Amino acid sequence: MVSIATICSHSALQIFHGARQEGFGTIGVAKKSVKKTYGSFPLAAPDEYVIVDDYYRLLHPSVQRGLIKKNAVLIPHGSFVEYIGSENILSKLKVPLFGNRKSLKWESSRSKQEEWLKKSKVRFPKTIDFEDIAGRVFVKFGGAKGGKGFFSVSSRTEFLEECVKRNVDSKTAAIQEFLVGSRYYLHFFHSPMQRRLEFLGADKRIEIIDEAYRGLPKINEDFFDYTVTGNAPVVLRESLLPQAIDMGERVLEASKKLFKPGLIGPFCLETMLTKNGFVCFEISARIVAGTNLYPQGSPYSPYIFEEPMSTGRRIAVELAEAEREGKLEKVLS
Amino acid sequence: MVSIATICSHSALQIFHGARQEGFGTIGVAKKSVKKTYGSFPLAAPDEYVIVDDYYRLLHPSVQRGLIKKNAVLIPHGSFVEYIGSENILSKLKVPLFGNRKSLKWESSRSKQEEWLKKSKVRFPKTIDFEDIAGRVFVKFGGAKGGKGFFSVSSRTEFLEECVKRNVDSKTAAIQEFLVGSRYYLHFFHSPMQRRLEFLGADKRIEIIDEAYRGLPKINEDFFDYTVTGNAPVVLRESLLPQAIDMGERVLEASKKLFKPGLIGPFCLETMLTKNGFVCFEISARIVAGTNLYPQGSPYSPYIFEEPMSTGRRIAVELAEAEREGKLEKVLS
Amino acid sequence: MVSIATICSHSALQIFHGARQEGFGTIGVAKKSVKKTYGSFPLAAPDEYVIVDDYYRLLHPSVQRGLIKKNAVLIPHGSFVEYIGSENILSKLKVPLFGNRKSLKWESSRSKQEEWLKKSKVRFPKTIDFEDIAGRVFVKFGGAKGGKGFFSVSSRTEFLEECVKRNVDSKTAAIQEFLVGSRYYLHFFHSPMQRRLEFLGADKRIEIIDEAYRGLPKINEDFFDYTVTGNAPVVLRESLLPQAIDMGERVLEASKKLFKPGLIGPFCLETMLTKNGFVCFEISARIVAGTNLYPQGSPYSPYIFEEPMSTGRRIAVELAEAEREGKLEKVLS
Repeated sequence: MVSIATICSHSALQIFHGARQEGFGTIGVAKKSVKKTYGSFPLAAPDEYVIVDDYYRLLHPSVQRGLIKKNAVLIPHGSFVEYIGSENILSKLKVPLFGNRKSLKWESSRSKQEEWLKKSKVRFPKTIDFEDIAGRVFVKFGGAKGGKGFFSVSSRTEFLEECVKRNVDSKTAAIQEFLVGSRYYLHFFHSPMQRRLEFLGADKRIEIIDEAYRGLPKINEDFFDYTVTGNAPVVLRESLLPQAIDMGERVLEASKKLFKPGLIGPFCLETMLTKNGFVCFEISARIVAGTNLYPQGSPYSPYIFEEPMSTGRRIAVELAEAEREGKLEKVLS
Repeated sequence: MVSIATICSHSALQIFHGARQEGFGTIGVAKKSVKKTYGSFPLAAPDEYVIVDDYYRLLHPSVQRGLIKKNAVLIPHGSFVEYIGSENILSKLKVPLFGNRKSLKWESSRSKQEEWLKKSKVRFPKTIDFEDIAGRVFVKFGGAKGGKGFFSVSSRTEFLEECVKRNVDSKTAAIQEFLVGSRYYLHFFHSPMQRRLEFLGADKRIEIIDEAYRGLPKINEDFFDYTVTGNAPVVLRESLLPQAIDMGERVLEASKKLFKPGLIGPFCLETMLTKNGFVCFEISARIVAGTNLYPQGSPYSPYIFEEPMSTGRRIAVELAEAEREGKLEKVLS
Repeated sequence: MVSIATICSHSALQIFHGARQEGFGTIGVAKKSVKKTYGSFPLAAPDEYVIVDDYYRLLHPSVQRGLIKKNAVLIPHGSFVEYIGSENILSKLKVPLFGNRKSLKWESSRSKQEEWLKKSKVRFPKTIDFEDIAGRVFVKFGGAKGGKGFFSVSSRTEFLEECVKRNVDSKTAAIQEFLVGSRYYLHFFHSPMQRRLEFLGADKRIEIIDEAYRGLPKINEDFFDYTVTGNAPVVLRESLLPQAIDMGERVLEASKKLFKPGLIGPFCLETMLTKNGFVCFEISARIVAGTNLYPQGSPYSPYIFEEPMSTGRRIAVELAEAEREGKLEKVLS
């Protein structure tokens, strides 16, 4: 039987907890300093640890051999991809991975995401050339993790000033239309075993800017910081579900054409619901941290499963089914 | 045994899920286009569908005869009332309805709501004459669904300008005092079978304006849009519960006088908790979408029920009890 | 066997519900007016009531004798401490109390809290002298309950004007640095029986100021009101958990040195997560109302307990274990 392994961060508690519920052994790749934290959650702590100095060490042949020997399947998550790098996951990581590892490459570049969304016929934020800045725009940087360093400005002058102030190269900026609406982060799961797409829930990311109003009427500029600090639970108007699920299906279908066999397992569409419908500003091609809200299931999962079903557990259920039917190749890469 | 039927929108997943938990057969009145979405949630999908081109078709004699033949009880929800119309529900709909259908008439007119709240001795927002606009006021329109088209202004000039800009007739506007406080949408259930009023939970509606601060310091006017997009869970300070429940009881008692036998089943008080206590700006005389947050029960329902109790399930429990005791007339109209 | 008793407010429903789950008898010290409200929640209502005109009456020898006769253990909560007073709890309350009653003294004074946080090596907001106000500062008053009366200003003149306007003595104000970040209220439980510190969840308090943005672009000053009205659920980025739990441990360790045997049972660290990490602006040395979100467990409790575990139930579990092992003295004071 395979074991479930991942790096101890991001959504690892949920992944291990779900694995344990389905009877899998678990392995945590951890820095020594976080072992104690995971030990504080006995039902979500891994059965055993592979201690590393740096998560990048996971790529070391001896570490990989150890994991392969233990029949480990790695579950990728946001920090996993950040620490190891999608390129290394493709070229240097030999341990079996849950999901299609090519999808991680497609999520990690803005231009690839745009190609994907275009092929999906899903609306995404318009890119704006520097010369065309005529009103409020949103500015992102490729290396920015978790929204850190993003900002919004209303003119070319302001844009350039902000780049100087932040000491960033204005030429590397992605300038996008500023979207007005409600943010919804939509959690999906594509099950090759059940041959279906499941809508498992939604959340809203909490960013430092979310408390900016507490500084009104005089705003501290420090509040204009898009760093993600956590997540809050939400549900959508039910009349929006057809659009939301349709969008998920289109992204899934496009993925099958762009990188066979396409998305496997959990993915997330980060959207802004504007008065003209959803605009998708990001795809995450693996489990997202917003699912940490729902270790016992979301407000949608009881409509699909009798048991409390987290995304972490859903991964384990899929893996167990694939293993039982001798079809692990359908869910691993 | 009766079947539980409703229009596939708003809170239908929750209603069907609850019905199924209590062993009822379920019928979804649906447009062909949404059937697939409901099929994505196998434990909340109706057992059978009545496909219509337009929800208004529910009123057609042949559709009604079909539902009556199947012993259907219709559960009204927000979209149900919007699509069919409270007047038609009273005069043209022959299928038995859960709850008192007269209550839907009382929720659908602002003047009737005010009469009801006045009789309940529950504070509601003061109406302000155009001539008396002297500071910030809130402006609503009768036809506005889900908050769309509402706005707030600070002077008569601004009010008139806004009406011109939006191309709405200023004479049809309801001008109200602008309330300062925290919004709480309080979910109640009046059980004629148990002869009690239950407090089942609370939520906060998510509106597009709720992310207005993300445009600070320069606000995009587009953000001033009160369209409801979803819901978020909340709990109240426990010391506010006596006031909240008392308000629910007064609204229930007044309903018994205004339209016998008064409210039956779920209703919601949409309130602003100001520093002078609750102000109720709306009554919903049927299940509200905020209860979709709690398919497994809210933070309050475990204090009343041993099992996970959604409002949808609560309806089914009431109906089952009434049927078992041969008292369906107590919960239907 | 002991009974579980508390004042009917704050988190009493949760406490009684948890006590009942673990088989304890329950006693509610209540004003007559709230008895009905608690009766609305049959699974969280106390088995019996001790009716008082004023909660302060709990200190009356006859009331205390009655409780002691019934083998009552009092569970302190926020309103409990507010109504009775931490000094009276130490000197006049003879009924056994769950937890270390000395901790309530340490939470009730700003200077003691600062001493505690300093000893814990946990960052807290810097105190600013009137003369040194040079930018935005946050102003608190000792007697302010639930954030009422707090304000923020940007200059000495503005500070003095605000004090005059509010008719408060500027000399009694605590002037602090204005913090920019996301608020997280972290729920901990120190179990002497299990000899461990548990992280049971997190919430965000809802204050009237939290809807200030709804008044944009013209802000009603009335919105600048920090009165707490309720709570909303949140989760933290998992990579922040080591810092959060470490902070909890340091506060616990410091408490052992400052008031032996230190914190027992639930406590909460009220923090602002800034871009430089957590800043703790308050310690609550007992159950907090934010735990009312989780009567069936939080997004973290399933990682520690197989059963749905609220903080109220956790208290009962600890008390039951101590009683079973004849070690009540380890959890009472």
